[in-house]
Amino acid sequence: MSVTVPVGFKASGATAGIKPSGKPDLCLIVRDTPDEHGCAFAALFTANFVVGAPVIVGRRQREQALKGGPAPRAVLVNAGNSNAATGQQGVINAEQCMAAVAGLLGCRGAEVLMSSTGVIGRPLPVEKLLAAVSGLVRGLGRGEAADAAAAAGIMTTDLVPKTALRQVLIDGRLVSIGAIAKGSGMIAPRLDSAAGPHAPGAGHASGTMLAFITTDAAISTPDLQTALEQAARPCFEAISVDNHPSCSDTVVCLSSGRAPWQTPPAKHADQPMPLLRPGTPAFAAFSAALAAVCEDLSEQIVVDGEGATRIFRVEVRGAATAAACTQIAREVVNSPLVKCAIHGQDPNWGRIVTAAGNAGVRFDPEQTSLHIGPVCVYQAGVPVTAALSDPALKAHMAGKKVHCVLTVGPADTVGAMTGCDLSKQYVVINAEYTT
Amino acid sequence: MSVTVPVGFKASGATAGIKPSGKPDLCLIVRDTPDEHGCAFAALFTANFVVGAPVIVGRRQREQALKGGPAPRAVLVNAGNSNAATGQQGVINAEQCMAAVAGLLGCRGAEVLMSSTGVIGRPLPVEKLLAAVSGLVRGLGRGEAADAAAAAGIMTTDLVPKTALRQVLIDGRLVSIGAIAKGSGMIAPRLDSAAGPHAPGAGHASGTMLAFITTDAAISTPDLQTALEQAARPCFEAISVDNHPSCSDTVVCLSSGRAPWQTPPAKHADQPMPLLRPGTPAFAAFSAALAAVCEDLSEQIVVDGEGATRIFRVEVRGAATAAACTQIAREVVNSPLVKCAIHGQDPNWGRIVTAAGNAGVRFDPEQTSLHIGPVCVYQAGVPVTAALSDPALKAHMAGKKVHCVLTVGPADTVGAMTGCDLSKQYVVINAEYTT
Repeated sequence: MSVTVPVGFKASGATAGIKPSGKPDLCLIVRDTPDEHGCAFAALFTANFVVGAPVIVGRRQREQALKGGPAPRAVLVNAGNSNAATGQQGVINAEQCMAAVAGLLGCRGAEVLMSSTGVIGRPLPVEKLLAAVSGLVRGLGRGEAADAAAAAGIMTTDLVPKTALRQVLIDGRLVSIGAIAKGSGMIAPRLDSAAGPHAPGAGHASGTMLAFITTDAAISTPDLQTALEQAARPCFEAISVDNHPSCSDTVVCLSSGRAPWQTPPAKHADQPMPLLRPGTPAFAAFSAALAAVCEDLSEQIVVDGEGATRIFRVEVRGAATAAACTQIAREVVNSPLVKCAIHGQDPNWGRIVTAAGNAGVRFDPEQTSLHIGPVCVYQAGVPVTAALSDPALKAHMAGKKVHCVLTVGPADTVGAMTGCDLSKQYVVINAEYTT
Repeated sequence: MSVTVPVGFKASGATAGIKPSGKPDLCLIVRDTPDEHGCAFAALFTANFVVGAPVIVGRRQREQALKGGPAPRAVLVNAGNSNAATGQQGVINAEQCMAAVAGLLGCRGAEVLMSSTGVIGRPLPVEKLLAAVSGLVRGLGRGEAADAAAAAGIMTTDLVPKTALRQVLIDGRLVSIGAIAKGSGMIAPRLDSAAGPHAPGAGHASGTMLAFITTDAAISTPDLQTALEQAARPCFEAISVDNHPSCSDTVVCLSSGRAPWQTPPAKHADQPMPLLRPGTPAFAAFSAALAAVCEDLSEQIVVDGEGATRIFRVEVRGAATAAACTQIAREVVNSPLVKCAIHGQDPNWGRIVTAAGNAGVRFDPEQTSLHIGPVCVYQAGVPVTAALSDPALKAHMAGKKVHCVLTVGPADTVGAMTGCDLSKQYVVINAEYTT
């Protein structure tokens, strides 16, 4: 249960034949309530300087929506072709698909947002898409089957569909937030902001991460954009499968404003939900639930990283700033040598410490300590030799989640990243088949 | 033929039992001419903020030599243990080994430089080293066998020994430059400078690269340091096996000043070679030969990268500066997705273009073109669809050296990096064995 749990949303999935495998490759999510009080739209796109055509179009839609123009009420997604590095024709192709869906839904093309994921640099097979959209619109529904069809339609190398749901009681209303997402290669999202793309750090970007979130909270478009940026960035930017941010990473949130009363009051039961306002406890409750959805999805994505058999979280403490801590953590989770060691259940902590030394953040090894799980392996610059034969270390390395805490100084700061191991299967997926 | 070709050098190799495999793990290179006119020493070390004990000691030796103090005349190298992340005891252990060799050579401990490579964070097995050094000193010799023993003694996961030799005629003297080197994992050198370590870029560092160079040119220590920095950095920093600079990367050059006459002149045949002076044609000729040695070694290292089956060179043109071009090239050669595509002979150029977009250097995709080998696959932001069926592209991808030229703008700038593919064997080497 996911995107059709919030009041006002329908979804569907279909197979257009874009993927050579013949698996589902289309998804449609639609708000079917009128454009009135509390409807909103928000989006974040990749900070890669090379972007897919849908990102070019989507950024324009976001800009219009923030200026009070038409906000997307539907999201059309295809897998199997990213429509990226396809030039001006890519934009024309995307707009043609958006217009076709809009025609069937009775709205304008600008009210349909499109996302595409899959092989880069091949023309979007527009005819296959156009032939499939009427079935897609006819198939729109609510409930478990609709949610599952939508989640399946966006998968690429994902082994499992990814969904999340949180519900929170706000001023007597049951606000739902439902979501679907996909990974699982080219995953190291760095997201932009409506206020202007922020430059990605050098060396960070991979695979396509897509997340589509629906909610029935009542909120304005600018406030939803703020809430989404605050909730989504810290979660999605804290994972990396292969340190190659995609040209198509996208997080979208649609709201209907129709959250129902949990128990309708005696009076004014037909009053719409008041708009959530920043700075209020209601806004904070909504933001926390939205962050929980993003956290849930981001963990599912990294767990299902291409070829992954386990994940590892690197928590860095004590650098001058939290950002510096995160920068060190990012370097560690992206080191191929660390990733291979994690894969081999090898507590090769020297690779972790030396990867940290490459992050461009100066620290003093003599003030540095490292825990792997419950075991301290390196204390104030000196190896804890006995640790390597500690059965607790061996047991921790054999688990599905390896957890490292690297302390590089005395400051009260922390930053963390979660990555996955590097297996032979990753190479098989990315070398032996064209994706 | 390598380090003992220049006049005044001997070398040897031995097995101290540091490696569990029982393979050779010690190397010694010694200048056996007196400390007089034209002897010099230069060194570059890793820019990683976490460094091995030999790097801590070596930096002090370099500082002393540049101040006119004793310059190392011998280099002791062990493989199998990097003596890194070993605290103050690591420094004591290194100095003990240096003193033992110095005692046998009849010089001071500060005149012996030490380098160590291998597993990180384990105490150096000093007793094994001390037991082996007398044999190592007794074994010192010249010629093919001595050079081969020295090159073998520094190998870790290298499949083949790496040697280089260049000879150049300078003002009637035959100047020789010989070298040995090792890779082959944790290779993405970022080197410091005697003027102070330069900060590594975020995201760049792996395995240990060691290179030991001898020459009989006559040159001062400060000028040799300058020549080495100019020659070595552009070569060694332009390769990456796995984007994880080691804590131990080291390039050392020793000179004896004894380059012989090619044909002794009738008069003043016993005059020593005049010192090479920066700004002269003689200095330029020496620098070019030194650069050729570094270039030769760096290519051997990347060809023998762990698990590598082919190398690929990424040349980026047209960004605002050459450094920006190199930054983009670095991002491309380090993308696991690009590396896997190269491994699979898959001309998946979308991965190359999107990796470029993550380098933190803004460029306009509509002004961007990409050639793979002789074939243009992406022209001014538009895919060249026919290219994918071009037999010339397929043939180029199947070769041992893949060459890409990515043009991102009109500027007359260029930067390049050479990487290798990512194979299942890389994972086997780094996951299935503790290294």
